[in-house]
Amino acid sequence: MIAAAETPIRRLVIIGVGLIGGSLARALRDAGAVQEVIGVARSAATGEKAIALGVIDRFVDDPRSVVEDASVVVIATPVGSFAGVLEAIAPHLNAATVVTDVGSVKQYVVDTARRCLGANFRRFVPGHPIAGTERSGVQASVSDLFRDRHVVLTPVAATEPMALRLVTHMWESTGADVLEMDVTEHDLLLAATSHLPHVIAYALVHCLARHPDRGRLFELAAGGFYDFTRIASSDPIMWRDICLTNKEPLLQALNTFQTQLDAMVEAIGEQRGEQLESWFKEAKLARDAGLDSKRDKRN
Amino acid sequence: MIAAAETPIRRLVIIGVGLIGGSLARALRDAGAVQEVIGVARSAATGEKAIALGVIDRFVDDPRSVVEDASVVVIATPVGSFAGVLEAIAPHLNAATVVTDVGSVKQYVVDTARRCLGANFRRFVPGHPIAGTERSGVQASVSDLFRDRHVVLTPVAATEPMALRLVTHMWESTGADVLEMDVTEHDLLLAATSHLPHVIAYALVHCLARHPDRGRLFELAAGGFYDFTRIASSDPIMWRDICLTNKEPLLQALNTFQTQLDAMVEAIGEQRGEQLESWFKEAKLARDAGLDSKRDKRN
Repeated sequence: MIAAAETPIRRLVIIGVGLIGGSLARALRDAGAVQEVIGVARSAATGEKAIALGVIDRFVDDPRSVVEDASVVVIATPVGSFAGVLEAIAPHLNAATVVTDVGSVKQYVVDTARRCLGANFRRFVPGHPIAGTERSGVQASVSDLFRDRHVVLTPVAATEPMALRLVTHMWESTGADVLEMDVTEHDLLLAATSHLPHVIAYALVHCLARHPDRGRLFELAAGGFYDFTRIASSDPIMWRDICLTNKEPLLQALNTFQTQLDAMVEAIGEQRGEQLESWFKEAKLARDAGLDSKRDKRN
Repeated sequence: MIAAAETPIRRLVIIGVGLIGGSLARALRDAGAVQEVIGVARSAATGEKAIALGVIDRFVDDPRSVVEDASVVVIATPVGSFAGVLEAIAPHLNAATVVTDVGSVKQYVVDTARRCLGANFRRFVPGHPIAGTERSGVQASVSDLFRDRHVVLTPVAATEPMALRLVTHMWESTGADVLEMDVTEHDLLLAATSHLPHVIAYALVHCLARHPDRGRLFELAAGGFYDFTRIASSDPIMWRDICLTNKEPLLQALNTFQTQLDAMVEAIGEQRGEQLESWFKEAKLARDAGLDSKRDKRN
């Protein structure tokens, strides 16, 4: 980790003070990596809660007034509102301000930023912390949310190296492991490991919620079910936006999954036990190995 | 909870000393609800491990020699081996021995027991503790696995009330909440809340395991992914058997799920954001409410 405290961010503007924005502010404050944090919140209740929790110094409801003098602007709203936010702030950015985001999809964000930011696009650094919980809102924010987690940055040819360095340092001072990746690769990988599981979990819980014996179903469900469906308690707006803006990679991942599930349905129907056992074993081995490898890297 | 220690089980035979069988033995011993526990294990290594861990008093590899003088026999092997086990022990049971099981499917088990046990079927109590972890084996067994968990018993018309009472008392002394349910209802409910999620998790992990960029996928996957797929680390043999023996209810649950997932795929393809948001909200509300209601009942 770099000694972030030696070069703190003078003024950080966080647009969207929720779980991710709030946790970033907390982490940077704890690390002494920021001097002033201004939150942009549409609701005064959220802004006041964030101040009371010590997450931000003050808040405004309109970002235009504060981005002018910002060192770094972090956009942490659901992806669907990015275009509006970027259009609003674009004319007010100064020539040194670095803009970054925390969105779970990157091609859409890069395209939108390129369209909205004009010359300032060079200082836009697309980012995505692979961290979170199923809870939302600033009340769920914690300062160690990003510790030992990956943060993926997907700079493009136009991205200024200085801007990239600044955002890299910002995330490193939260304890995160920063890596760079191609925009397309990011969207395909995340579609498979995150967006697909969320859609599946929502679909499953939706089936049970419509079940005539719903009360008994949820009552009888074991701990494994609640682990499995934890991600279906995530923010519906955020996930609507991810589905809409990462459409092609997500549909591709869904198609692969549906093909495999169809094959399993067929094997169950035809009572092909050996085939099922071999698939289940392969899945168990892959997951256990993936988990072991993650644990080794943490230790 | 009844004062189980006042009427302990004299000799308990547990066929299959794994996570569930081992945890049951531990819980009954801790509660003073059993005098002697004999394990039946095909492998001497498992039997010796179970003795060393204090789970059982002794073990045999063939159940026939010990069921004759047993008060209760618990079958805790994967469901696929039940027919063999029941056929082997049937001629050796005495007229007072109660037999029960811990299988995750009940119609198949009832049919098999009826066929194999003859007159002793009256003292067979079909049971299913809704508890477990993704880990397997006696080394994973713990004495509080069933505390505050549901145990479902599915007696049939032929089941003797005395046998049912004895098995109810046995589970109550582990701290479990025992409820009775119709065989068919059990299999439909469990297909939806447990068997379906397991098949989905196996299918998802299987897709990722076959992905060309597999290493990176598992490395980048967030905690939510590992929660979501925890059940794909469950015992493949056990789950093969559940898929084979609860075929019709499981295929029905899978069909409902596939229909909902198809609808979501279509909505994503057609960019119908309002529809997605409404489904996601409904799912989140249902899961959160289910979880709250479970928590309330525990407290």
